[in-house]
Amino acid sequence: MSLTLSQRSAHYTVSPIRELLKLTEQPGMISLAGGLPAPQSFPVQALRAACLDVLDTQAQGALQYGPSEGIAPLRAWVAAQLQAQGVAAKADEVLITSGSQQGLDLVGRVLIDPDSTVLVERPTYLGALQAFAQYGPRFADLTDDADGALPTLDNPAHRAARVVYLQPNFRNPTGQTMPAARRQQWAQALRGRSIALVEDNPYGELWFDQPPPPPLSSQLPGQSILLGTFSKMLSPGLRLGYVHAPQEVIAKLTLARQAADLQTSSLTQRLVLKVLESGVLEAQLLRIRDLYRRQRDAMLDALQRHMPDGVHWAAPQGGMFIWLTLPPSMDATALLPLALARKVAYVPGTAFYAAGAAPRNTLRLSYATATPKQIDTAIAQLGAVVAAARADHPAERSATTA
Amino acid sequence: MSLTLSQRSAHYTVSPIRELLKLTEQPGMISLAGGLPAPQSFPVQALRAACLDVLDTQAQGALQYGPSEGIAPLRAWVAAQLQAQGVAAKADEVLITSGSQQGLDLVGRVLIDPDSTVLVERPTYLGALQAFAQYGPRFADLTDDADGALPTLDNPAHRAARVVYLQPNFRNPTGQTMPAARRQQWAQALRGRSIALVEDNPYGELWFDQPPPPPLSSQLPGQSILLGTFSKMLSPGLRLGYVHAPQEVIAKLTLARQAADLQTSSLTQRLVLKVLESGVLEAQLLRIRDLYRRQRDAMLDALQRHMPDGVHWAAPQGGMFIWLTLPPSMDATALLPLALARKVAYVPGTAFYAAGAAPRNTLRLSYATATPKQIDTAIAQLGAVVAAARADHPAERSATTA
Repeated sequence: MSLTLSQRSAHYTVSPIRELLKLTEQPGMISLAGGLPAPQSFPVQALRAACLDVLDTQAQGALQYGPSEGIAPLRAWVAAQLQAQGVAAKADEVLITSGSQQGLDLVGRVLIDPDSTVLVERPTYLGALQAFAQYGPRFADLTDDADGALPTLDNPAHRAARVVYLQPNFRNPTGQTMPAARRQQWAQALRGRSIALVEDNPYGELWFDQPPPPPLSSQLPGQSILLGTFSKMLSPGLRLGYVHAPQEVIAKLTLARQAADLQTSSLTQRLVLKVLESGVLEAQLLRIRDLYRRQRDAMLDALQRHMPDGVHWAAPQGGMFIWLTLPPSMDATALLPLALARKVAYVPGTAFYAAGAAPRNTLRLSYATATPKQIDTAIAQLGAVVAAARADHPAERSATTA
Repeated sequence: MSLTLSQRSAHYTVSPIRELLKLTEQPGMISLAGGLPAPQSFPVQALRAACLDVLDTQAQGALQYGPSEGIAPLRAWVAAQLQAQGVAAKADEVLITSGSQQGLDLVGRVLIDPDSTVLVERPTYLGALQAFAQYGPRFADLTDDADGALPTLDNPAHRAARVVYLQPNFRNPTGQTMPAARRQQWAQALRGRSIALVEDNPYGELWFDQPPPPPLSSQLPGQSILLGTFSKMLSPGLRLGYVHAPQEVIAKLTLARQAADLQTSSLTQRLVLKVLESGVLEAQLLRIRDLYRRQRDAMLDALQRHMPDGVHWAAPQGGMFIWLTLPPSMDATALLPLALARKVAYVPGTAFYAAGAAPRNTLRLSYATATPKQIDTAIAQLGAVVAAARADHPAERSATTA
């Protein structure tokens, strides 16, 4: 007896990389693979106090069904936060979601038809590709330079795109930040076209030296969909994020939401609101920024000391990730089992490419979860793996040193 | 500047009924419309204790990302509960979801292609129709008799169906229970066909005098997808439900889940597990059953006293709903504004029909939320509305009395 599955189901496949990364649960493994926030950053005491307060004073609301859009004061809090960043946001243009990933899925439902063109950075966030892919788009890669994706809509397919998906701040996986000037160029290129900007901003608050430029959405009112999350600021396990979009898009997203899962937990919404109202967020952000800055510094330092010549990276100004480019002959997927044998995990870069041939010699490292000491140990091991692979390619070695 | 939305978006529309029901928030309104669990049934103290315990002893797990399938002990708890009901369930055949509604959406993604036939009861649960409709099926109505939907797959379209969606226990909206014999007939009719049974069982624990027969799924191993929820037992605001399905279907549902929103809140999963482990569930269920039984009795009694001749209903043996059939000339949608003017809300029956012409003279009443006294007041008002409408149709009146 076998059931007939949808054609869509054929696309729901387990990646071999994900299978390999199950090994990261082994004892002694140092994982630089996942984008897991550092657990010591979680505001446990503030949440504990919030739990008691909410269940003692508003249990009926916290445990009952609530509005699909999210509770009003949390929507207002998000709108105020976006306004402070220059986005003309109103509370009724905000939908509370169960994490940013749900925002991506809902945006896919409401904006993407089979064969719609979706423009994406190269490389881009894997989870966005997975969310959008369910709705059958054609992905078209943008071209990067040092400032991020170039705003060239230079062929008819690009100009007819339904959506452009960008992560201007500390992009996952590259760690890049799009400078203000490039954002302006993007706004000019998109303005007046019926291409929706989907701006994904999970890491914007995780800056190290100075805040990133204002969201690109601030320059494209009525045409932008901005996604944010409390996962990196407070806790990913709560599953709380938001979408800001024009009111008519929010109305559709909300109806899609009702069909999807009705609403985000009434309890977790109130817990997060209570934590935000308690005023701990600013101290919380200072602590996380400091923590991740030190871990980034540790990783940059370790890379400098342990990586052989011919390996390249750039220092991220925020977020969680460093993008490594190995010598061209190397294959980061092929090296992964060797790294895992030395108790180090990373994500090969091929996972992050939507269309076109993916380079085999890139990989993503996260400095969010491991301690500076663990990071040093892991990068030393990884450096040894790369150096050994390099020794197997003497031709390239001499080419590089030539 | 207007954005291009997906074709799917055209189906995301606000029903005029939903707009009318916004009036239920007015002071003094007695709503028999929503299926909101009685707030006095929420296990607030058990949840409060669970919050403290979880945040004091396992905060890192509760606030971090977790497995998309759900946490292992909760999956095991669900499997054990299903086994006790005769379903041969294993923990790895269980996916934890953010409420049953998400289970329906994920089932739609994994099983339904455009133009797949989905067989549904007539009438059936509106939320299931909304979830499945996103994936473009053709709905085909089953025919009811007093025991529920008839298992006649009497035309080629029915026999080629991808899915049959049934609620054997205390069906929303009719309150009907499918007897054991009818379940057996359904199992026989489906066995060996490649039609997936999707058995939705949100109300199964809310029985009044005796438990309903074992799930139909228990007779169709390998061919059944069973959906359950903690919304009616504990709290809908937590958003916690589950799907049991063959392992290969669970694998696809899990991948769809990753694209949808990664996972259900790590915190709420642990809270519910802790409440379940604390042993309060049995007492909780006794309390809820007793509460709803008394409210059902109050509604049956009020209907008996206040409804004019020609109005029909059956006594539900569990769940939350009574289905009212007015005289054939009446239109429950047209009467709704008159009822709202008298501070009573209900849901017109037309909302619950998938295909074919919906009768205009039916409506759904919920006895879950209002107190016995409120129920009596509301039914008296509703009786007056129906009696007044009846007086406007003297022809029918004499026809009935003839």
